[in-house]
Formats: sequence, structure tokens, C-alpha cells
Amino acid sequence: MQHNAVAAGARSWPRVEKVVPDTRTYPRGVAYVDGAFTTISEAKISVLDWGFLHSDATYDTAHVWNGRFFRLDLHLDRFFGGLEKLRMSIPYSREQVAEIMHTCVGLSGLRAAYVEVICTRGSSPTFSRDPRQSVNRFMAFAVPFGSVANQEQLRRGLHVAVSDIVRIPPKSVDPSIKNYHWLDLVRGLYDAYEQGAETALIRDTDGNIAEGPGFNVFVVKGGRLTTPAFGVLPGITRQSVFEICGLLGYEYAAEPVPLDNLLGADEVFITSTAGGVMPVTIVNGQPVGNGNVGVVTQEIMKVYWERHEHPDWSVAVAYPEA
Amino acid sequence: MQHNAVAAGARSWPRVEKVVPDTRTYPRGVAYVDGAFTTISEAKISVLDWGFLHSDATYDTAHVWNGRFFRLDLHLDRFFGGLEKLRMSIPYSREQVAEIMHTCVGLSGLRAAYVEVICTRGSSPTFSRDPRQSVNRFMAFAVPFGSVANQEQLRRGLHVAVSDIVRIPPKSVDPSIKNYHWLDLVRGLYDAYEQGAETALIRDTDGNIAEGPGFNVFVVKGGRLTTPAFGVLPGITRQSVFEICGLLGYEYAAEPVPLDNLLGADEVFITSTAGGVMPVTIVNGQPVGNGNVGVVTQEIMKVYWERHEHPDWSVAVAYPEA
Repeated sequence: MQHNAVAAGARSWPRVEKVVPDTRTYPRGVAYVDGAFTTISEAKISVLDWGFLHSDATYDTAHVWNGRFFRLDLHLDRFFGGLEKLRMSIPYSREQVAEIMHTCVGLSGLRAAYVEVICTRGSSPTFSRDPRQSVNRFMAFAVPFGSVANQEQLRRGLHVAVSDIVRIPPKSVDPSIKNYHWLDLVRGLYDAYEQGAETALIRDTDGNIAEGPGFNVFVVKGGRLTTPAFGVLPGITRQSVFEICGLLGYEYAAEPVPLDNLLGADEVFITSTAGGVMPVTIVNGQPVGNGNVGVVTQEIMKVYWERHEHPDWSVAVAYPEA
Repeated sequence: MQHNAVAAGARSWPRVEKVVPDTRTYPRGVAYVDGAFTTISEAKISVLDWGFLHSDATYDTAHVWNGRFFRLDLHLDRFFGGLEKLRMSIPYSREQVAEIMHTCVGLSGLRAAYVEVICTRGSSPTFSRDPRQSVNRFMAFAVPFGSVANQEQLRRGLHVAVSDIVRIPPKSVDPSIKNYHWLDLVRGLYDAYEQGAETALIRDTDGNIAEGPGFNVFVVKGGRLTTPAFGVLPGITRQSVFEICGLLGYEYAAEPVPLDNLLGADEVFITSTAGGVMPVTIVNGQPVGNGNVGVVTQEIMKVYWERHEHPDWSVAVAYPEA
């Protein structure tokens, strides 16, 4: 016998409201949705959008620091690459998407911002299960700059634990399409919290280190830098570290990183648009090297932030006059 | 040099709108969001909800047929199981969730409905990256009943193609947590469309058949039924077919299903809440068996729909008086 919540006769029927207020608090920020700019707290997506119901979406996040976008062109390259691979299209050119991102930041007034562009599969009037019948949906938003590591963690290094969870493999989802499939990473995070760590690294299908929730990882050993090659997002901060290694004369490679290499490293750091280059000083409860933030890490962090003023890597945001 | 969309001086600033109208058309239906009932076209989720930005969510979908919920208890079991595994909580008991689902259907007036309940990780006021700081968000909606197979396909059988895409493995995401990680299935669908098929099956990590977009698959050979055991959603329609096999005296097993077993089958069918038991008559361009909908499939379809009136498997929805 199935559960019948309330006898039919006893039921009193609630109203179908025209508008349901969302009483939650959201950060500052400005979004672009359905063709107009609005505050971030008003930026909503239909619950029937396949971007929500099937995570059928791609996105990218750039950042603004001291009123300048950092490497926006690389983020646009990756975003438009993801659109093509997912067979999505948007009614905006690359220049128009850049313009929308600039406008979100300008309207928000944020001098340090995290700026996301998103395209979802969208929806069709019939709720068709055929993705070809959906009209894709584009949106963007700027919120205050956030970091994987807080100020204290940046100073003394993050505490990381390695989970046995395997990052969703490339045979399932192409990792060069930046995507929202994060349940593996979220599970890794909870595993890390249980071990007293602050964030997580998860594995690739061979058991080597892959990446963490929103970041790539680098290992420094004898002055040489390595980072996982397989099954990871080709991060733009990761790419920037490659180029900074070139500037500084460090040898670097993308290659398999076994757990032992991580545990036996001189230095470890992670990279993300959300925070840049961030030191790791404890892995699985054990100190990395001498337990202090390493000199190579510090040097790369310094150049990474200096490059935010360089016209090859950054461009000024226009803000409305006060 | 980075792209600078418009010179600062030339820019004219758009308004930040208080409300942005969504002009898309959605199906009929009633939703429950943020504590109130509303029409489906007004049912929205914040773009900052981690259920969207990280697909950090679980859900379930039950259906109503001829004004009766089908096996609602099993759907509630799976939904509450997923909540626990994802360490989410909602401020509603099992009875209250059932009541909300009944009310969505009653208010919608739909006699045949697809009824979804969702819990997302939610959001925090600071946009924190720590999932423990998010307040989880519950929602539900009822829309008209939909089916993987349309009337013609139900009569003559679906045309399916097998893609080489691998279903996200259990080492990455526990498939018993019903989740929205579908980019593998969507890619499989596009592969199938390119081969002229109507829907797709994708593989498990061993290369055997796993499942399709929103459905399990059964193979009938010599009167015995098999369905993949590993790395697939434990579907409730799949479970119902097991029980119907018991009623009808058919032998069945969940075990590895190699591609050859599919190609050499007497009959093939798929199972989903969205459509029930649906015949497949062409796989990879070749007819299954004699190319007609098989007798075992027809018998199971018949009992499956008959059971929708049985009080052990269904319960009446209350509707407001007209």
C-alpha cells in the first residue's frame, strides 16, 4: 500500500503564487541574463533549463584585479571552444561577450572581481528530451574576487588531503570543456575535511594525482616543476605558470604525478583563477619539504601578480564615473 | 595585447534592471520553490546556487498516470538516500515531501504527470567555496508526462546506436545517487543522431553496455532477461521489471551485458519513469531478432501498465474540485 499523505477530503489547497520571493542573501555583483543587466540576487535560471537538470552547460571564469582583466583572451578561447564541442551557439560574437563581461564589472564597480560566462543547453517549449530542440541560453555575472586560499592560508600554505575518488575521466567527459560536473570533487572535499585538511586532491584513472576542486596542482623537486597532464582542466593559471617558468628559466613538464612525487616534493602549490598561485605546505598530515612556503613558489607567485599590470596579459576595465 | 571591447570614453552604460522578464515558453505545470507554490514558468533558481554551478544536487522523478502516483515510496527512498550520501538536509519529512508532490500535481490538474523533487547544495551569503557553509535548497515540480519514446516509436520500437562514450564511473560518482551529470549521455545522444538513430546507449569502463540518457536497458535471449549490473542507476522501472519477471515466471539477472549480447538478442527494451517499458527494434542499424516488437517485451509492457491501478504499487492523487 502506497503512502497517501492527506485524505482528499481533508485537503485545503494553497495558492499558486505569481511571484515567489527569494529571501536568501547573495554577494554584491551584476549579472547579464535573458538579454539584460540585473543585480546578482535577481539573476535566475528556469528550473527546466537543461543546464540545471542535466548540467548540460559550459562556462569560463576570468578575473579582474586592480581594475584590469587578466588574460581575458585565453578565457574567451576556451569558452568558445567549449561551445563548439558541445554544439551550442549564442547570438553574441567574441567581442560582444567581452563587452558584456566588461559591462558587468563596470556596473558592479568591483575593482577585484570573479567574472563568469555560461552557456546552457537551454530549454524548449515542449520540454523535449532532444537537445537539438533546445534554444541555448547565455548568461554572465561579476561578483567579488574569491580565492581557494584565504589570507592566512596564502601566508602559511594550505593543508591538503588526497582522496581516492577518481576525477571523471576524459572517456566520459572531455576535460577541455570547462564543465560543472563536480560531484567527484565535492566528495573529495568532504573526504579531506574528515582528515582535518582544508581542501582536496583527487586521482586520475591510473591512481596518479589529477586535480582539486577548481584548481590544478604543481610539484617542485630539485628546481623542476611538474603538473598532471591527463584528465585535468587545462587551466589558464596553469598555462600562466608554464610561461612564468619560461621567463624565470625553470624546467617544467606536464606528466603523470604519482602520490609519492607529491609526498616527496620540495614544494607544492595549486593554481586557479580563484586565487592564482597558492602554496601547499601539508599533504595528508605531513609537511611538504621543510614545511614552509618554498622559494620557487614565492618567486612564481610574485611574478604572477606582477604580470597583472602587464599590457600583454591584462587590460583595463572601464568604470562609470562616480 | 588584450582585447579592449570599447574605449572607456565612448561607453554608454545600460541600466541595472530590477526584474528581467524571461520571455521563453514553458510547459504547463506547478512548482514548489523557496517555500511556495507557483507556475512552472516562474520556477527559478539563483545562478549562484551550487546545484547549478557545480551540479551539486540530487533529485528523483516519479510519475502520475490516470491520476495515480506510481511507486512513490520507492522514489522517496532513493531521494532520501541520495540526500544522506551527499550530506544534505531539507526541512521536510518524507511525509511532507510526498504531500508537496501530491499538491504540485493536484494544483496542476495533470492526470498524467512527471513529478520531480530536487535538493541542491544551495548557497551561502558569502559565495563560500566550502559546501558545509551552504544552506541546501529543496524544490519540486509537476509537468505533463513525457516519454523517451513517442507513440510511433512505442508501436514500432526505438532505433538505438551504441556510442563508445563511457558512463561516468562509480569511482567518480556513486550512480545510486540520482544526479544531473549528463554530459557523457548528451555526447552519446549526438553520436547516435549522427548514425541516424533516435537515442543512445553508452558503455561501462569495461566496454560493456551501461545505460542511455535517462533509461536502463534489458536484453531478452531464450526467454531469459539480463540488464547491466555495474555503473548504472538502479532504476525503479528496472526494479519493477524484475518484480514483473517474478510474477510472470521469467528468469532475470543483473550482470555484464557485452555489445554482442545486445546485437544477438531476441528482444531489447529500455526502461524509464519517462515512458515505462519501451521496445527497441534496431541497434546500430541492424534489426533486433526479427525486427518486430517481441512477445516478452509486449507482455511486460502490458503488466507494467496494469500495475498502475494496483494499490500495492500506486496511490490516488487528490485534485481540487472543478
